Amino acid sequence: MKALVEHFEMSSPDDVQNIGQILRRMATSKPGRIALIAKVEGTATTNDFSRSLTLRAIRDEVIAAGLDPRRVHTILSTGCEGVISPGGFLFADFGADGREDGGLRVGFHKSPPLTSPELLSQCHIDYSRLAVEGALHDCGLTAKDRVLVFMKSPLMTHQEAVDLPEERARFAGISGAARGAAALGMAVALGEVDPADALIGNLLRRSDLFSRRGMVFSGTETRACEAIVIGQPAGAMSGPQLRCGVVDDLLDIAGMASIIASDGNASIDAARARSGDILAAFFKAGVRSDGQVRGSRTTVFSSDLDPDKHMRAAASGVVAALTGDCRMFISGGCEHQSPDGGGVFAVVTKS
Amino acid sequence: MKALVEHFEMSSPDDVQNIGQILRRMATSKPGRIALIAKVEGTATTNDFSRSLTLRAIRDEVIAAGLDPRRVHTILSTGCEGVISPGGFLFADFGADGREDGGLRVGFHKSPPLTSPELLSQCHIDYSRLAVEGALHDCGLTAKDRVLVFMKSPLMTHQEAVDLPEERARFAGISGAARGAAALGMAVALGEVDPADALIGNLLRRSDLFSRRGMVFSGTETRACEAIVIGQPAGAMSGPQLRCGVVDDLLDIAGMASIIASDGNASIDAARARSGDILAAFFKAGVRSDGQVRGSRTTVFSSDLDPDKHMRAAASGVVAALTGDCRMFISGGCEHQSPDGGGVFAVVTKS
Amino acid sequence: MKALVEHFEMSSPDDVQNIGQILRRMATSKPGRIALIAKVEGTATTNDFSRSLTLRAIRDEVIAAGLDPRRVHTILSTGCEGVISPGGFLFADFGADGREDGGLRVGFHKSPPLTSPELLSQCHIDYSRLAVEGALHDCGLTAKDRVLVFMKSPLMTHQEAVDLPEERARFAGISGAARGAAALGMAVALGEVDPADALIGNLLRRSDLFSRRGMVFSGTETRACEAIVIGQPAGAMSGPQLRCGVVDDLLDIAGMASIIASDGNASIDAARARSGDILAAFFKAGVRSDGQVRGSRTTVFSSDLDPDKHMRAAASGVVAALTGDCRMFISGGCEHQSPDGGGVFAVVTKS
Amino acid sequence: MKALVEHFEMSSPDDVQNIGQILRRMATSKPGRIALIAKVEGTATTNDFSRSLTLRAIRDEVIAAGLDPRRVHTILSTGCEGVISPGGFLFADFGADGREDGGLRVGFHKSPPLTSPELLSQCHIDYSRLAVEGALHDCGLTAKDRVLVFMKSPLMTHQEAVDLPEERARFAGISGAARGAAALGMAVALGEVDPADALIGNLLRRSDLFSRRGMVFSGTETRACEAIVIGQPAGAMSGPQLRCGVVDDLLDIAGMASIIASDGNASIDAARARSGDILAAFFKAGVRSDGQVRGSRTTVFSSDLDPDKHMRAAASGVVAALTGDCRMFISGGCEHQSPDGGGVFAVVTKS
Repeated sequence: MKALVEHFEMSSPDDVQNIGQILRRMATSKPGRIALIAKVEGTATTNDFSRSLTLRAIRDEVIAAGLDPRRVHTILSTGCEGVISPGGFLFADFGADGREDGGLRVGFHKSPPLTSPELLSQCHIDYSRLAVEGALHDCGLTAKDRVLVFMKSPLMTHQEAVDLPEERARFAGISGAARGAAALGMAVALGEVDPADALIGNLLRRSDLFSRRGMVFSGTETRACEAIVIGQPAGAMSGPQLRCGVVDDLLDIAGMASIIASDGNASIDAARARSGDILAAFFKAGVRSDGQVRGSRTTVFSSDLDPDKHMRAAASGVVAALTGDCRMFISGGCEHQSPDGGGVFAVVTKS
Repeated sequence: MKALVEHFEMSSPDDVQNIGQILRRMATSKPGRIALIAKVEGTATTNDFSRSLTLRAIRDEVIAAGLDPRRVHTILSTGCEGVISPGGFLFADFGADGREDGGLRVGFHKSPPLTSPELLSQCHIDYSRLAVEGALHDCGLTAKDRVLVFMKSPLMTHQEAVDLPEERARFAGISGAARGAAALGMAVALGEVDPADALIGNLLRRSDLFSRRGMVFSGTETRACEAIVIGQPAGAMSGPQLRCGVVDDLLDIAGMASIIASDGNASIDAARARSGDILAAFFKAGVRSDGQVRGSRTTVFSSDLDPDKHMRAAASGVVAALTGDCRMFISGGCEHQSPDGGGVFAVVTKS
Repeated sequence: MKALVEHFEMSSPDDVQNIGQILRRMATSKPGRIALIAKVEGTATTNDFSRSLTLRAIRDEVIAAGLDPRRVHTILSTGCEGVISPGGFLFADFGADGREDGGLRVGFHKSPPLTSPELLSQCHIDYSRLAVEGALHDCGLTAKDRVLVFMKSPLMTHQEAVDLPEERARFAGISGAARGAAALGMAVALGEVDPADALIGNLLRRSDLFSRRGMVFSGTETRACEAIVIGQPAGAMSGPQLRCGVVDDLLDIAGMASIIASDGNASIDAARARSGDILAAFFKAGVRSDGQVRGSRTTVFSSDLDPDKHMRAAASGVVAALTGDCRMFISGGCEHQSPDGGGVFAVVTKS
Repeated sequence: MKALVEHFEMSSPDDVQNIGQILRRMATSKPGRIALIAKVEGTATTNDFSRSLTLRAIRDEVIAAGLDPRRVHTILSTGCEGVISPGGFLFADFGADGREDGGLRVGFHKSPPLTSPELLSQCHIDYSRLAVEGALHDCGLTAKDRVLVFMKSPLMTHQEAVDLPEERARFAGISGAARGAAALGMAVALGEVDPADALIGNLLRRSDLFSRRGMVFSGTETRACEAIVIGQPAGAMSGPQLRCGVVDDLLDIAGMASIIASDGNASIDAARARSGDILAAFFKAGVRSDGQVRGSRTTVFSSDLDPDKHMRAAASGVVAALTGDCRMFISGGCEHQSPDGGGVFAVVTKS
């Protein structure tokens, strides 16, 4: 069996019926690695436990399908604001057989756990690099190939920061810092940033350092950097094609169009004409730290609503207007993953 | 002096500095009517008082500029979710002199106040029609001309509903019902709906009845239907052009493009090439009552976030991706103003 | 083994470690029925799935402890606003042996499922009555004994209401209506309301009809009325004592004191002196439908915050100020469970 | 005319009708200083502008009443969660004539404005001290008298912190830091803390340093420390009596009772019997930084709800249960104003 890319919908965070169907259908083909990248419809607040519920439901379903949970890797992002349809994408890699024609591969690697004093230190960056290098190796690809990395990074809690010096304690509870540190390591592994620049002292300071082909998520549920790589050889010509790149800002629909196009054509009309070919769409969107978009003040960072909710909802409109499809993965916060205020956009097209 | 269309920005709900500058600049030209249509950055909850603050600040500024507050009409809509930049558009009509070349006109009319038992009855529809007819007449236009109506409708409070029969009491506190009733009356005045169909019994039931060229807002601060008309003669060829119409849904970027185009061309690339010509953009967006967008489930009606916030934020991404500009007026809730799940889109272009 | 009343704490909605310890400790004693009544710390919004997560975790833990899930009954209420400590109370009834000394008993009964047309009809009231009568019978008690009922009622969704006449459709999605209907049936079973008055037409209209000794919760996860009874014979003199009654309003600390006292003494100083004897405390609090408390306007029904959150948080302060303990069960919404604006307060004391 | 203490209610943030009545009634008596301390019912979020609205409305009303706005001082605190009734207390001091019998006095002083680099530096503490000393002097009282200070402190914005060293930049946008710095200066002026300890390096670190008789509020609307003192000579025996002190925690109803009592009696029953004598009640409540209350975990610092909302709502239940009155001033955040997790409670009694 060849590599598989499928969308699954979820009527609630514990609705894994659709996932179960896909898993059971392919269980006999003995998948090597499976990646699930999904949006979950919780409140995305501190006391939102929908992610735990979904993880529990998926694990039960994986076991029920006779698959090995250690070979199924999941990235869940909460928050389906705007027109994001709850659900996600499943990628399955069936190993050697499915790879001969350049089909999509799935790689995974987990760094050693980070101790509290190692969080947000240089070690955080280095372990992230290790995780990405390991995941690339896991599926036989290199940074020169076409790859998209999904990274889960640990987050430093306020409790852990108590004994740290202030220049590090200030990062406690700051998702953007955790994401940024992991992104710097990822950028080195992807060859986008010189190792000499990937220093903890540059975290959230040098906005010229970014990874271009990865999306980082942070949470307290992991102590390690965990990398999932979706990719294919640089020269893969037939079958599903992974296309990925950075866009200028959340509204850069022309940038998205040129990523969708095989020839870099930035025509939106042309991209829309191809929308039926899009198997999966991912967007990690940021807004400049001064809250301005196209020169105008927005309230992204100055309202009762969490900045990520502003971003996800607005970005969902942009992407769905382009693809005509609400089944997409949208997330906010792009520190060291793109230029300040930019974003990472990726699609898998049929061909 | 000719008709004027200008954007003003607001750094907070009581920042009327920019409005004041425009008002003082044109005060000597003796404007006939002025309309201010703006987005205010409050929380858009029951206990959001930002609209009152802005109204108070504008009134003081109008008086300070030596203008007559009775000739300045304001529609404020709270909620700047997504990439909506707080601020709005000022339209000034200088009367006979400015009108000769087909320039934009501003008309206003206010119905008699509705008593509590008249709210959400046939009278509500009829008074809305009166208000629109009066506002058209006020600026010498008819339903055959190019017009866009902004309507403020009273809202029935729970207190007022206490003694009403249940088939009407159920509309208490429902903005959508107040908007829908006013929209039906507006639709008759605009010649879009047959008076025989504009019956209170069809409210929120006959989704085939809608007005196409108006946006309705509801609130408890008024007891009357208040209509502001922005328009110009059907054959106006030079100067700013008002273009307005319905779109299929919140994501219908092609529909918006064809409204922007003078020739109905739905090319998004072409519309974007013209974006520098857009002086003002307005979008009132709805989502189908089952919450589906393009056949996929969304959480617009099933989350902790107010449906209007989902809509406004997502719609802001769509419109700004098309125009490249966050200075826009976006509002949610399109009952009887467009087909179910559709929206009303309008622009004023330079020519 | 005798009846057991224990508090368990939860560090998160899927932390059932403490529950597991209690369950395993008593598993060998073969409990007849177990009831878990707990507060869960989710957001208590439409898209809060913490209750599902806790239920899943408890079920797994019950099975792991070798107990029969059909004999373990759980009522989870989300929302730990104010000083409510997440966690709850476990009641275990070991059957005949444990009952001889008047110890606490646990009864359970579930009505047949209600079809959509039966929701919020007379049948809803009647089935609730059946559930309470069955639960009383299940543990050998009658309405004349000392009992406290926890009832879970189905909630009518907007979807189900589509074909219903308006006088019933208006109850769609209204928790208060579902709670009220079930409370009327409960009141009949408890002998507090004449069956001739427990008519669906009196729902939310006759505030003089209420049950006094029960707390009702509604949700879409059940189709039946499910009653848990905690109780003991009227004459039980030794061991834990259940004390229960209505209080005048959310602030009625004197009313609570007199319920705690064995002799009706309303001294708060006296009640506080006994606080070490309190094994469990429950409060279901309401606020008058006009939002007034002690003659002053509050914003309970007129703010961005859900009324239940205002009530739970304020009530938590009142109860904990009295008992000196944040381990308590507090819930809001007391329709037909107490006089309008009142509440139901219950404690289990050591003796 | 003698000193005046009156409650005023507000049906909305711009309802100053009740305030206006009081102002007009006493305008002819030429008040020396007037202080208004009120709760406003906005959302208490970044984009809540209700305070600006109320200030504007009060200023207009003061002028309409023929009073000098420079002698009317207002502290507005947003957030009426729980059972807090919107409105506040007006204190008027008529100068020499009204003071002979030990009646309540009102003093005011404003420090020089703090420049951005001076915020959260030692200067912040020193200027706060100056403000309190000035306000005491303004009404002829000293730290040995019975006084309650209401202090408004500037808040350092994120923008202002850009060029600051990290040990200070980390305080940007942190209300607790701004409140704490001002409280340290206040504590020195009140003789509660040794000037040698009131060092910026001890901010939020030495919880043994606190002021006991003041409440601090922070906001970006002021650049100076502004102190309002309400007080009377230590030996004042007749007329309204100000009583003030710290309580152990938010639930310390006995501590509140002993502050109400003239003889330190901590009986709650006794305090409740005197509740008719209470003219005004103020409570600034904190929760220990680990979120525990009476040894149990709460979600005050770990939920979607702002910690201040948890605190205000719960505290409102405690105070109103004691006084039987929802017309009270409740605020959260007690850094250096009381021991960690404690609070400041004050009442004015009739005699």
